[in-house]
Amino acid sequence: MPTLNPTHDPQATSWVASAQATGADFPIQNLPLAVFRRAGSHAAFRGGVAIGDQIIDLAAAQAAGVLDGLGAQALAAAAEPTLNHFFAEGPSAWRALRHGLFDLLHSSATGPKVDALRTCLVAQFDAEFTLPARVANYTDFYTSIHHASNVGKVIRPDDPLTPNFQWLPIAYHGRASSVVMSGTAFHRPHGQAMPPGAKAPVYGACARLDYELEMGFFIGTGNALGEPVPLGEAEDHIFGMCLLNDWSARDHQFWEMNPLGPFLGKNFCTSISPWIVTMEALAPYRVPAVERPAPEPQPLAYLDGAANRAAGGVDVQLTVGIESAEHRARGLAPAEVSRTNFHHQYWTIAQMVTQHTVGGCNLQPGDLLGTGTISGPTPAEAGAMVELSRGGTQPITLAGTGETRTFLQDGDTVVLRGWCEKPGAARVGFGECRGQVLPARAR
Amino acid sequence: MPTLNPTHDPQATSWVASAQATGADFPIQNLPLAVFRRAGSHAAFRGGVAIGDQIIDLAAAQAAGVLDGLGAQALAAAAEPTLNHFFAEGPSAWRALRHGLFDLLHSSATGPKVDALRTCLVAQFDAEFTLPARVANYTDFYTSIHHASNVGKVIRPDDPLTPNFQWLPIAYHGRASSVVMSGTAFHRPHGQAMPPGAKAPVYGACARLDYELEMGFFIGTGNALGEPVPLGEAEDHIFGMCLLNDWSARDHQFWEMNPLGPFLGKNFCTSISPWIVTMEALAPYRVPAVERPAPEPQPLAYLDGAANRAAGGVDVQLTVGIESAEHRARGLAPAEVSRTNFHHQYWTIAQMVTQHTVGGCNLQPGDLLGTGTISGPTPAEAGAMVELSRGGTQPITLAGTGETRTFLQDGDTVVLRGWCEKPGAARVGFGECRGQVLPARAR
Repeated sequence: MPTLNPTHDPQATSWVASAQATGADFPIQNLPLAVFRRAGSHAAFRGGVAIGDQIIDLAAAQAAGVLDGLGAQALAAAAEPTLNHFFAEGPSAWRALRHGLFDLLHSSATGPKVDALRTCLVAQFDAEFTLPARVANYTDFYTSIHHASNVGKVIRPDDPLTPNFQWLPIAYHGRASSVVMSGTAFHRPHGQAMPPGAKAPVYGACARLDYELEMGFFIGTGNALGEPVPLGEAEDHIFGMCLLNDWSARDHQFWEMNPLGPFLGKNFCTSISPWIVTMEALAPYRVPAVERPAPEPQPLAYLDGAANRAAGGVDVQLTVGIESAEHRARGLAPAEVSRTNFHHQYWTIAQMVTQHTVGGCNLQPGDLLGTGTISGPTPAEAGAMVELSRGGTQPITLAGTGETRTFLQDGDTVVLRGWCEKPGAARVGFGECRGQVLPARAR
Repeated sequence: MPTLNPTHDPQATSWVASAQATGADFPIQNLPLAVFRRAGSHAAFRGGVAIGDQIIDLAAAQAAGVLDGLGAQALAAAAEPTLNHFFAEGPSAWRALRHGLFDLLHSSATGPKVDALRTCLVAQFDAEFTLPARVANYTDFYTSIHHASNVGKVIRPDDPLTPNFQWLPIAYHGRASSVVMSGTAFHRPHGQAMPPGAKAPVYGACARLDYELEMGFFIGTGNALGEPVPLGEAEDHIFGMCLLNDWSARDHQFWEMNPLGPFLGKNFCTSISPWIVTMEALAPYRVPAVERPAPEPQPLAYLDGAANRAAGGVDVQLTVGIESAEHRARGLAPAEVSRTNFHHQYWTIAQMVTQHTVGGCNLQPGDLLGTGTISGPTPAEAGAMVELSRGGTQPITLAGTGETRTFLQDGDTVVLRGWCEKPGAARVGFGECRGQVLPARAR
C-alpha cells in the first residue's frame, strides 16, 4: 500500500548515519521532541529533536536560520525551555517542523541549510534532559481491563472488575509537581499502612513499593472550560506519547484509597521518558480498538465512532526490566520481568480525552495524561509487581542473578522500553524511562 | 489578656472610615490579599490589599515608593499579576507587608507616604478579580467527620465512616485548571450516571448538582521533593485561607468514583473567594483541635503535637445561601440553607500539610488545598445539599420564596460567607464566594 505521507516512507534514510543503525529508536521517520542541554553546562534548557544518536538543538537551529520558512512563532516556541507554547501551536505547526526537519535530514538533502544543521547536532550521550513541558495538570487513567481484573482480585476477590469499568475510562487526578524526568532517583516513601489483621495502622517506610508500566500522552491544544472535545476531534488535541512509570506504594495506597482514590500511594514520584513521539510518527502503527464481544457493552454514543473503532489503538511493544544492585555490580543487563503491548488497552487515548472533557473540564497545553497500567491478557504481560507476584504472595525470579522479588528493593532500577516495529514500516522507538529506588530517609 | 502583636489590637482604627463600619469584613486588623484591576480596564492584574470597602493597589503603591523599606523583592512580587512569587517569599516578607501597611493605614498615621497611599486606593465595587495565584496543584481533603458520616450513609448505609477516616486526613488530587474566581458562572455538566435499578448507564446533564462548603488554603513556601514537612513546621508553609465551593455532580460522581475517587464529578468547576486572609490575621481565632474521646484513636505521632492540640483549629463562622432566579426577580436576599463553623473539622490544616508531604510529595507556592466539606454535628450545619436533603429524598424549603430543592436548579446562585468574630477581638471576614449554575449546553 503506497504511503501518501513522505515522512512515513520506510525507505527514507538520513545523512546522520546512526539513524539507520539496526534497532535504532530514532530513524528519520520518528523525530521525537525533548528538552535538553549539554550535560554539566549551565546553558538554558532548549527543545531538541532526536535523529539517530544525535539531537538537533532547536535553539541553535533557529539562531542559524536553518528552519526559516517553517513559521517563526512556532519555531521560537519549539526552542524554549518548555514546549508548552509549541504544543499550543497545534497540528499544522507540529507537522511543519517535522516535515521541514525530515527534508533537511534526508540523505538526499544538500545546501547551506543542511551544512548549518550539521553544526546544530549534540550527541545524546552528552545531553541532560528535563521535563519537556511544564506539567500544568496530570491525570492518570485506568484503562487496562487485564490490570483492573488482576488488581481487583487482590483487593476485591469476589468482584474484581467494578461495574463502571466497561462503560467509561476511569481516571483520577494525579500530582503534577512530582512528575520527574527519567533518571531521577527517589527515596522509598514513608506513610501509613494497615497491616493484615492489625487493629491500628503503622507509620513507616513503604514495604510494598511497586512500579506501573504506562504510556503518557501530552495535550497539545487545549479546550476552553465548559467546552467538551467530541471524540472525532480528540486526537487533534494530542501532541504525542512517551513512557511513564507510575511508582506506587501499595501498602499506603490500599489503606488510604477508600473512598477517594489513590493519593500518597502515588504522589511521591512519577517518571516519564525524555522523548515525546508525535502522533504523526505513530500513524503507521495505528490499529483497531479492542473488540467487545457480547455480552460486553458497547461504548455509549459520545465515546463511540468509526474512526476510533478502526484505528483508535496504537501498536506499541513494551518491556519492563529490573536492574538490581547485583546486576549493576556484575555488569548484567536488567532482568526483563514483563513484555506486553499497548494495543490491549480497553479504552483509546481519544476516548480518554473525550471522557476527560465531557463535563467541561479544560485541558491545557502540556497537560500529561497517563494511560494507566498496561497489562496484557497473560500473567507474563502484567505491568506491575502486585500482579506478577499475585499481591506479594508469589515471588518472581530475576534473570541473570536469580534474586527474587515480590516488590521492589532499595537499589533496584526499573527500566521501561517501548517501540513500534512491523514489516513495511520504519521502527519508531520511545527510548527508555528509568528510575532508581533509594533507601528511605531517616524519619 | 494583652496582645503582643500590634496588628491584633482590637481598638486600632484606620483613616479609611469604611474599615470601622459595623460588620465590616476588612478592618485594619485583617488586610487580606487579592489580585485585581479596575473593572473593564485592560490594565494588568496586580496584587491588592483590602481595607474597608477599598483596595490598596500594590503596583501603584510600589511605584509611588509608599512601601519603601519593606523589602523591594517581596513588594515587587506582591504587585505581580499572580502572588506565587510573593507566597514563596515566606512568613517574614508576608509579615513585613502586613505590618508596614497597618502602620500607614492607622488613624494616627501622617506624612507624605500616607498622603501617597491615599492615591493608591481603588473602590472594591470598581474592581474585578482574578485568581490570586496560578494554582499549580489543587488538593481536596475530606476532614469533616460529620460530612463523611452523612455522605457515607447515602452511599454505604451499613458502614458510613471508612476505617481510615480517624487515622489520617484523607484527600484526593483535584483539578487545578478548573479552579475559578468567585462570580464565574458555569454550565451544568454532562456526564454518565447509573440510575437506580438501571442495567446500563445514561449520558446526560447532571441531575444531582450540588455545592460543597469548604475553606481553601494557599501554600506559601513549598518543600523539596522527598522532604516531608514535620507537623511543627507545617503552618509556616501556609500563606492564608479563603472560601471554596467544590461544586459536585453527585450522579456522575457516585457512578465513577469506585475505585479511584471523584473525577468528572468535581472537575468541571471549583470556585474560590477573591480575598486570601493571612494566617497572622487569623491568629486571634485559633482554637484547640477537636477532642477525640475514647474509644476514638489518637493521631499517630507524626500527626500529633502539643501546639496542634492547643490551637490547630480556626474559629470561622460559615453560611451558605441559595439565591434562586425568583429571589433575584423579587429582590430577596439569598435563602440561608446552612450555618456552621470550621472549628468542627476533625483534622487541622497543619495535619493536612504534614500528611500531604509525609511520603515526600512536594508542595509549591500557590498550591491550593481544600479542607473538604465543612459540616457541623447537627443536620442544619450540613455543608452540602446531598446531606441537607438526605440524598435527595427530603426537599428543603428556601426562605423568602418557599421554593423547594433537593439539588441545585438552573439559575441558582450559591453564596458562601465566612467571618471570625468574638468579644475582645476585631472581626476578620472572608467576604463571599459565589457562583451561578447555567443551563446545560446543547449536547
